[in-house]
Amino acid sequence: MTLAATLDRPSKTLRSLRAQGPLVQNITNFVAMDLAANTLLAVGASPAMVHAPQEAAEFATVAGALTVNLGTMDSHWVASAEAAAKAAVAAGRPWVLDPVAVGATGFRRDNAARLLACKPTVVRGNASEIMTLAGLSGAEGKGVDSSVGSDAAVEAAQRLAEQSGAVVVVTGALDHVSDGTRYAFCANSHEMMTRITASGCALTALTGACLAVEPDPLAAALHALAIYGVAAEKAAARARGPGSLRMNLLDELYRLDADDLDLAVRLG
Amino acid sequence: MTLAATLDRPSKTLRSLRAQGPLVQNITNFVAMDLAANTLLAVGASPAMVHAPQEAAEFATVAGALTVNLGTMDSHWVASAEAAAKAAVAAGRPWVLDPVAVGATGFRRDNAARLLACKPTVVRGNASEIMTLAGLSGAEGKGVDSSVGSDAAVEAAQRLAEQSGAVVVVTGALDHVSDGTRYAFCANSHEMMTRITASGCALTALTGACLAVEPDPLAAALHALAIYGVAAEKAAARARGPGSLRMNLLDELYRLDADDLDLAVRLG
Amino acid sequence: MTLAATLDRPSKTLRSLRAQGPLVQNITNFVAMDLAANTLLAVGASPAMVHAPQEAAEFATVAGALTVNLGTMDSHWVASAEAAAKAAVAAGRPWVLDPVAVGATGFRRDNAARLLACKPTVVRGNASEIMTLAGLSGAEGKGVDSSVGSDAAVEAAQRLAEQSGAVVVVTGALDHVSDGTRYAFCANSHEMMTRITASGCALTALTGACLAVEPDPLAAALHALAIYGVAAEKAAARARGPGSLRMNLLDELYRLDADDLDLAVRLG
Repeated sequence: MTLAATLDRPSKTLRSLRAQGPLVQNITNFVAMDLAANTLLAVGASPAMVHAPQEAAEFATVAGALTVNLGTMDSHWVASAEAAAKAAVAAGRPWVLDPVAVGATGFRRDNAARLLACKPTVVRGNASEIMTLAGLSGAEGKGVDSSVGSDAAVEAAQRLAEQSGAVVVVTGALDHVSDGTRYAFCANSHEMMTRITASGCALTALTGACLAVEPDPLAAALHALAIYGVAAEKAAARARGPGSLRMNLLDELYRLDADDLDLAVRLG
Repeated sequence: MTLAATLDRPSKTLRSLRAQGPLVQNITNFVAMDLAANTLLAVGASPAMVHAPQEAAEFATVAGALTVNLGTMDSHWVASAEAAAKAAVAAGRPWVLDPVAVGATGFRRDNAARLLACKPTVVRGNASEIMTLAGLSGAEGKGVDSSVGSDAAVEAAQRLAEQSGAVVVVTGALDHVSDGTRYAFCANSHEMMTRITASGCALTALTGACLAVEPDPLAAALHALAIYGVAAEKAAARARGPGSLRMNLLDELYRLDADDLDLAVRLG
Repeated sequence: MTLAATLDRPSKTLRSLRAQGPLVQNITNFVAMDLAANTLLAVGASPAMVHAPQEAAEFATVAGALTVNLGTMDSHWVASAEAAAKAAVAAGRPWVLDPVAVGATGFRRDNAARLLACKPTVVRGNASEIMTLAGLSGAEGKGVDSSVGSDAAVEAAQRLAEQSGAVVVVTGALDHVSDGTRYAFCANSHEMMTRITASGCALTALTGACLAVEPDPLAAALHALAIYGVAAEKAAARARGPGSLRMNLLDELYRLDADDLDLAVRLG
């Protein structure tokens, strides 16, 4: 399959990110806040962690995009996230849902269902999470990590995209994107990234930033994968382990040359 | 203008920090906790993140200084912060207010007003934040980042100092300090620091530590800027991007030679 | 004293960690979440930060081990932790209690007493914390840091082990372990580790991981100290300060060779 010409140039989205510096509101988990905010800053966006019930929805109408991550939710944060998501949709702003470990507990399944009903623009998860959301059994993850490879969830991604109207991203060794009709993948990434906590959550934040500058949500999601994957590969080439990988990832997101990006990316 | 002789030697404050290892209580945001605590440890202070309603005020009477950061406040944390600030003042302990993104939502403006009424020793913010607190219009920041340069807020800093009785610090390319009567600036810093999340919040924590060992709050605030700015410059000289800058910043705060500090600092 | 042959080979536990990748639930403080999760991932375990009242106990029956850290507790988190600890015990799962700064406020003493009553498998703290829990006076820590050396708490560790039924770990320049009957120490460590926030909390998380794969809790606790201490020494040998030490620590935990570990460890 040949990728549409509008999709195979992530450099355009990277240049827009740096030129526009979009404000991205994140309602995310306690583990991910630091890496998500630093990922956004490194790539040229402006992060805001705003989740209080008194201000989350108000802020969502100002931000360029919203991301909601269900990693360490408490009940009043879920209400905040729901209100913020509705406000974003009403204001025509894109938003991303990250259903961390949705299969692990009933509380997480309920939270994900509530947020999924608020019409996310993009849903990003690992194979276990996407299969759980799509209603496929037998795919419960072990905690926050997936129990199956990402390829096993391609059909689930398409089904969930059809059911929800969202662009669905499944990340893993290969990253898959579907909007129900169109499909694309990104092959850039490095295995050691699974040894950094919140590396998926930070990608969710970056996806929000790309949505704020790229109107086609499938292109935005794919280009976030490309930018993150190429930076991860460059970072891993200089890393001794996950500590230096994490540091290098932020350096490489900052240094990433837009033309190099188009050459290094492996999309299809 | 020639700086008073009591102000131009930040080495004295750095030596006191390392000799006394002051205990600094921080009620800060979720993004900043890690970097703020590591900044304090690197420079020789002892951080304590204590914000629960049941203990925040009790702890404030024991700590050498308190810092309150309004970045990710929830309503019951605001009450904790208010009680801790009042307890600190009653016990004669200095405290610092950091009004993160105060112009962004009504909730933030209300929180800042409540805390400002508790008589902070120092207020530290970017230009947008200080102009908002001083009641000057047209300076709303974009999320947590300032929409104007720090020089635009020098008058606002003086006005806010007069109104509040606090020493006011405006950080940016140039850092300004005013107590309403005296004025000083620090020119040490590096532009890439704006690409590290919570770099301002960590400076707030360091300002608290300096207040715990230096009785003149204007000197303490200025010396915190000097220590942080010189360490940032040394860190940036070895950095490939914001990831390595953040790591190097902690290394340089730890390694900083007191005599080198006096030579490298650019105060006025 | 000669160490029992079953105890002097931490390589066995390290190999089990990597082979089994145990799921470890952590109810820990906001400062420690990032380092604790990254420590677990680097060594081969799978972290899950799950503390919401709606799911903490449910999750504890699924995880291989639970760790509870009282660093930044709020009242509803204490209830979650209590429920999770009881669920873990009922399901026959090991759990670790980390009584951060227990002597600092009445709230912390109450929280620690509630959790200690839930029969932790291991209690890990610094000398001040263990002496406070054992009921010895005059050992109040300054905030989160110990006011006395670890050797001063050996007797307290034994007494607390007898009182509580837990294996008790006192960390410091020398790390001591007691189950009331047996005693062991670990001499591996580096002084600069005290300049990294949450370095003790991350060790608590690692102790949980070891308990999930090693049935003798004294051996598990001792081997966690050995793995962490040897990695810290290797990390410090390459560090310029606490920023690079933290990064190197994660790299070295990831790279640690099991045979090298047995050669480098200094247990007794």
